Amino acid sequence: MDVYIAGVGMTKFGKSKEPLEKMMAEAASLALKEAQLERVDAVYTGVMNVEEFVGDSNFATLLVDTLGLVGVPSTRVETASSTGAGAFEAAFYAVASGHMKHVLVLAGEKMTHLPTAKTTRILSEVIDRSERRYGVTMPALAAMIAQKYAREFNLSQLKLEDILAQVAIKNHTNGYLNPYAQFRKIITKEEYLKSQMVSYPLRLYDCAPITDGASAIVLTSQPTAIKVSGIGHATDTSAVTHRISFTSFDSTKEAAHKAYAMAQLDPSDIQFAEVHDAFTPFEIIGTEDLGFFSGGEGWKALEEGITQLRGRLPINPSGGLKARGHPVGASGLAQLVEIVYQLEGQAGPERQLGRAEIGLAHSIGGLGNNNLVTILERTDRKRISKANTPPFGQAWNSEDQCGTSAPKKSAPSPPLMGVGTLEAFTTLYAVPEGFRSPLTLGFVKTEKGEVVMACNPDYRSPKELKMGKKVSLKTREGLYVFEKLTWWNRLKDWLIK
Amino acid sequence: MDVYIAGVGMTKFGKSKEPLEKMMAEAASLALKEAQLERVDAVYTGVMNVEEFVGDSNFATLLVDTLGLVGVPSTRVETASSTGAGAFEAAFYAVASGHMKHVLVLAGEKMTHLPTAKTTRILSEVIDRSERRYGVTMPALAAMIAQKYAREFNLSQLKLEDILAQVAIKNHTNGYLNPYAQFRKIITKEEYLKSQMVSYPLRLYDCAPITDGASAIVLTSQPTAIKVSGIGHATDTSAVTHRISFTSFDSTKEAAHKAYAMAQLDPSDIQFAEVHDAFTPFEIIGTEDLGFFSGGEGWKALEEGITQLRGRLPINPSGGLKARGHPVGASGLAQLVEIVYQLEGQAGPERQLGRAEIGLAHSIGGLGNNNLVTILERTDRKRISKANTPPFGQAWNSEDQCGTSAPKKSAPSPPLMGVGTLEAFTTLYAVPEGFRSPLTLGFVKTEKGEVVMACNPDYRSPKELKMGKKVSLKTREGLYVFEKLTWWNRLKDWLIK
Repeated sequence: MDVYIAGVGMTKFGKSKEPLEKMMAEAASLALKEAQLERVDAVYTGVMNVEEFVGDSNFATLLVDTLGLVGVPSTRVETASSTGAGAFEAAFYAVASGHMKHVLVLAGEKMTHLPTAKTTRILSEVIDRSERRYGVTMPALAAMIAQKYAREFNLSQLKLEDILAQVAIKNHTNGYLNPYAQFRKIITKEEYLKSQMVSYPLRLYDCAPITDGASAIVLTSQPTAIKVSGIGHATDTSAVTHRISFTSFDSTKEAAHKAYAMAQLDPSDIQFAEVHDAFTPFEIIGTEDLGFFSGGEGWKALEEGITQLRGRLPINPSGGLKARGHPVGASGLAQLVEIVYQLEGQAGPERQLGRAEIGLAHSIGGLGNNNLVTILERTDRKRISKANTPPFGQAWNSEDQCGTSAPKKSAPSPPLMGVGTLEAFTTLYAVPEGFRSPLTLGFVKTEKGEVVMACNPDYRSPKELKMGKKVSLKTREGLYVFEKLTWWNRLKDWLIK
Repeated sequence: MDVYIAGVGMTKFGKSKEPLEKMMAEAASLALKEAQLERVDAVYTGVMNVEEFVGDSNFATLLVDTLGLVGVPSTRVETASSTGAGAFEAAFYAVASGHMKHVLVLAGEKMTHLPTAKTTRILSEVIDRSERRYGVTMPALAAMIAQKYAREFNLSQLKLEDILAQVAIKNHTNGYLNPYAQFRKIITKEEYLKSQMVSYPLRLYDCAPITDGASAIVLTSQPTAIKVSGIGHATDTSAVTHRISFTSFDSTKEAAHKAYAMAQLDPSDIQFAEVHDAFTPFEIIGTEDLGFFSGGEGWKALEEGITQLRGRLPINPSGGLKARGHPVGASGLAQLVEIVYQLEGQAGPERQLGRAEIGLAHSIGGLGNNNLVTILERTDRKRISKANTPPFGQAWNSEDQCGTSAPKKSAPSPPLMGVGTLEAFTTLYAVPEGFRSPLTLGFVKTEKGEVVMACNPDYRSPKELKMGKKVSLKTREGLYVFEKLTWWNRLKDWLIK
């Protein structure tokens, strides 16, 4: 059974004094009003970690009570930071099954009331335990991925910095035009460069903020102006270091593959997209993984202005997670609300896109390991028959690149003491509760060819570290430790032996 | 599209040294083996509170990685203590939609490694904030509900004690025969009476234990020997004191109504059931709410032996949550695994039921506010046409009793200082972190007819308290406080004024 959008709503994102359930009720009432419904057959609620952010369990029940919908079935859904999209997917199947006519999807998170180190600790729990114990955070992992991207595609540190700044500037410009955005402020390259280093080379302006907010969508089996054309969902290894590639996400590629297949579309059909930019490098990588641009070409499209609001393929017209804000459970659904605003022509004169008949939302769960891609389409859009064209665009060869069914690397073997290659590194300044700042971390390739997470005992800024260089690698208290390969360090190791 | 069971599996319930994901992988591999599948289209995972029990977020991803199913879409579902049934429902819709062929449902929880007061605090977070701040726990609420039941149906305290003991004895006897059960021990009335008081009148043997365990089911769109005939899901007020009735759960009635309607069956068709007996009084109430017996008659059926393993309508042949154990996220799915064992004739010679063609599972989320009812049926069962019979059994009049769409009471109005009626009370000995033991709590009806939660400042056992008696009611530090209505207390109040 086909599934349609009957109504959408969201709160302004930012800092809120309201309890989470009240914010979610505000978003819900807007969506129900647009849908002209007072009651629904079920509620699906996306919240990532209400247990630790607000100290509640059984939140799905609290929510229907707050909404005045006592009695209605209510289910909480969670897929880490893609939770809003995950709740939408679960609700989609409920309606598609024919068992439910009208379903309310709600997503939200309340985060700004806690100290940053506590929020950082809670957010870090999405990271695999084997990596989390190093004190690594989401920005630190994203920083190392950015470093790898630069190295893989021969971008200098200066060039990388410039590209990331351009993502931030573009999304802040879009956010400036979005009344729902947390940051409604245009930023300059100078301001970007002055912003605080969070985890080298990522600055504050490279990272989505800590945000309160809620979003809501009503799904229905009754035809409306907007249809859900495709949904895809895929996972990847829990530990980032267990992957073959660090500069693209298999989970995005596989989810996109499924969404395009369900929609019978290819990347060239998409007119605009909301791409998960929790960290600026992820927008570049996302546009490549979604098949809009070839691998290593996403940054060129950005430089050419293609992804700007008035470009050929606008990316994050809402301002993205970067400027609209990132209440972790809500973002995946807020992206879809933005797509609906655009498809309905309700995005306001400054932000409304000219071509808005088909849009895509891409949401990342965890560090790229629980991702969803959703395609929404106007029902009055004319489809051109594609019977004789290949199912996917040139830029994106799903057979070659889609590695989710390919064998993954196994967990690294026990301790060693030797030499490795520094694949990527970062110095993390915003550390989780219980860790000392700054903290230098790296991906190190062992002599056996495995990549492991490792920390550097030198708490000063590691100016002398370089990617691709050999480092000493040993274990200390069950953690891998890497150091610059000096004669002095080699002698120390020899003496300890 | 119809949905069938392709395979089931579970771990032995009890204390486990294995990490949660390993326990869940063990259950999954049994279910996948029975289904003869190596890969599925999606995984739906039910865990209630991994964030606080084991300190992980993004658990759905960790699980597919542990299972060797990297790439497969993975979604976590949660509906408080009915989570296992909630995950099953979400997976059911995914298959019923026609978008997925084979889906793995997994449910589990790891709880025994934490101190009891911490576990109690975590479990109490499912209770509405307005009630939780009194220090009330799930056993304390269940105790007051038991008291109300006794009062409503004119049972003496001694009679109530005898009935609850019979539930515990029956379920322990069934658990003795179940190799997966945490407690494989027959208990006597004497042992029951000797067991520690948790929250008067509920003893340790009235409460499901703290348990580690996991369960798994593979759903498929390809016909097998067992079909999912009906699923119903409903909610109730977050706060227990906001309800009209305390001796039946509207959420069970409404969920049962929906499940029977989908299955086109009525209560008299059900041959055996797994009923959520986290607390012994809930089994009695459950058998009434499900329409097996009239309101206030459930305890008589128990006394007559109808619900015993060899009775006319066996309830909890597995031993129930009481004896099999209650890993909160897993129980709702473990009930369904037991139904499948029985329908397959795989329950072992001692526990196997003679008539096992159609079974029902009833799972309570929170304190009766997020409940699910699921009906499984052998596909070779002959259906008798019921075109001319009413849709529901005599014992259960859904129109009169099903109050979920009836207006609910609003939250109680601000503080007062006056006299109320003690509707139910309990003395809680196992208090959550941060509260003093013992703690006496009550439901007090105000002069305006509202029921509020209130605490008693007398920390000794309140032998002088009686249900139905007038008590003084006032507010202190934002909490309602009740005391015996003595001249001395009245004088104190007058002096304070």
